[in-house]
Amino acid sequence: MNPTDLTSLSPSLATLPALPALVAALVALFAKTTLTSVLQVLARLRAGVFPIPEDARLLRKKQADAEAPFVRRCANVWRNDTENLPLFFALAVVYVLLGASAEAARLLFGSYVLLRYAHSAVFLLGLQPWRALLYLSGMAVCWVIAWKSLLLAGLMG
Amino acid sequence: MNPTDLTSLSPSLATLPALPALVAALVALFAKTTLTSVLQVLARLRAGVFPIPEDARLLRKKQADAEAPFVRRCANVWRNDTENLPLFFALAVVYVLLGASAEAARLLFGSYVLLRYAHSAVFLLGLQPWRALLYLSGMAVCWVIAWKSLLLAGLMG
Amino acid sequence: MNPTDLTSLSPSLATLPALPALVAALVALFAKTTLTSVLQVLARLRAGVFPIPEDARLLRKKQADAEAPFVRRCANVWRNDTENLPLFFALAVVYVLLGASAEAARLLFGSYVLLRYAHSAVFLLGLQPWRALLYLSGMAVCWVIAWKSLLLAGLMG
Repeated sequence: MNPTDLTSLSPSLATLPALPALVAALVALFAKTTLTSVLQVLARLRAGVFPIPEDARLLRKKQADAEAPFVRRCANVWRNDTENLPLFFALAVVYVLLGASAEAARLLFGSYVLLRYAHSAVFLLGLQPWRALLYLSGMAVCWVIAWKSLLLAGLMG
Repeated sequence: MNPTDLTSLSPSLATLPALPALVAALVALFAKTTLTSVLQVLARLRAGVFPIPEDARLLRKKQADAEAPFVRRCANVWRNDTENLPLFFALAVVYVLLGASAEAARLLFGSYVLLRYAHSAVFLLGLQPWRALLYLSGMAVCWVIAWKSLLLAGLMG
Repeated sequence: MNPTDLTSLSPSLATLPALPALVAALVALFAKTTLTSVLQVLARLRAGVFPIPEDARLLRKKQADAEAPFVRRCANVWRNDTENLPLFFALAVVYVLLGASAEAARLLFGSYVLLRYAHSAVFLLGLQPWRALLYLSGMAVCWVIAWKSLLLAGLMG
């Protein structure tokens, strides 16, 4: 099916050209967090360390005081994502609603997704200063989206 | 007021038939997190355990090193929600913008809300393997929304 | 450029009058969380306490068991924001999509932003009962947005 057919189905696609780029970015980021969850569960099973009592009982282990180191690392990746992804989601939705072009959205959303994949990888591997640089780059992309949204909304003069 | 009158007020309702289902789901999930906060505050007051110094001073208690067990359980529910709800919100908004039907949205959003209410309940009660199964079911619903959004956006051929 | 010119560029601005207010609120909240991150990094460098091993190595310090007190305070502000901002974002986007008026959105979004800035400030300063009162006021604004969205969606009779 080509895009011209689709716009006849969905009025939003006709007026919001950046919507497909947002869908692709969201699904890619959802795949990343799903993968983090899978890694965390596997790491917890492998270490055999369960701080939640019913988890320990289910796997017939003693309840632990704290998570194993790699499980904590996955939790840090998750925490960093919960601090950053919702702001990206909100800014990206608004940017799309303001009529952003498909090209600009593909470039900005694509950069953000790649930077966050790389950030998670180096966080899991424990590589500095790469983690800090990738974090700041992701933030910079969000600030570009914020800036362009302010312009599109007519809020910057 | 019937829906036909409303669409004359809001142009979005005419072109985005799944929007009311999203509003209902959001409000239901907001009610759930509000309830978690209330439970957490009540549990903290009842245990009399306050790790933040100004909270301990306000209630004339000694500052504690860690939260009471049930307060930690509420914090786990919150953490799990902060990891999962924002992705659902973003996927659901995009799905609605792509012109999802009211029926499909009611079914998917309704299932997700029920699964997350059940997940929070069994997490608070400490029931496994139910917590894991409900978590995975909620993720599965989100993946269905992601898949349908990719199709509606014309990104899957 | 005046708003009338802009609506000819973006079809959303013509039908979604509250969209500029949402952009302004999002950018203000993004500035707040960016500031929290900067404060947290500065506090961690100043205390010289690094619980993540590669951070300790990078700065040639011994790995610590826990964060310094003010870094923990910043983490608490972040955690509180991750619990509250995504729900505001989702409710606000839906409220805008339902055709909320620019005036109502400016008042509600503006109040929420001010209350969350004040909440972060008193949390960092350790002032109770102000933190609790500002938290509850922010929640109340979200409930007003939720209620108005239910009305606009025709879900409350």
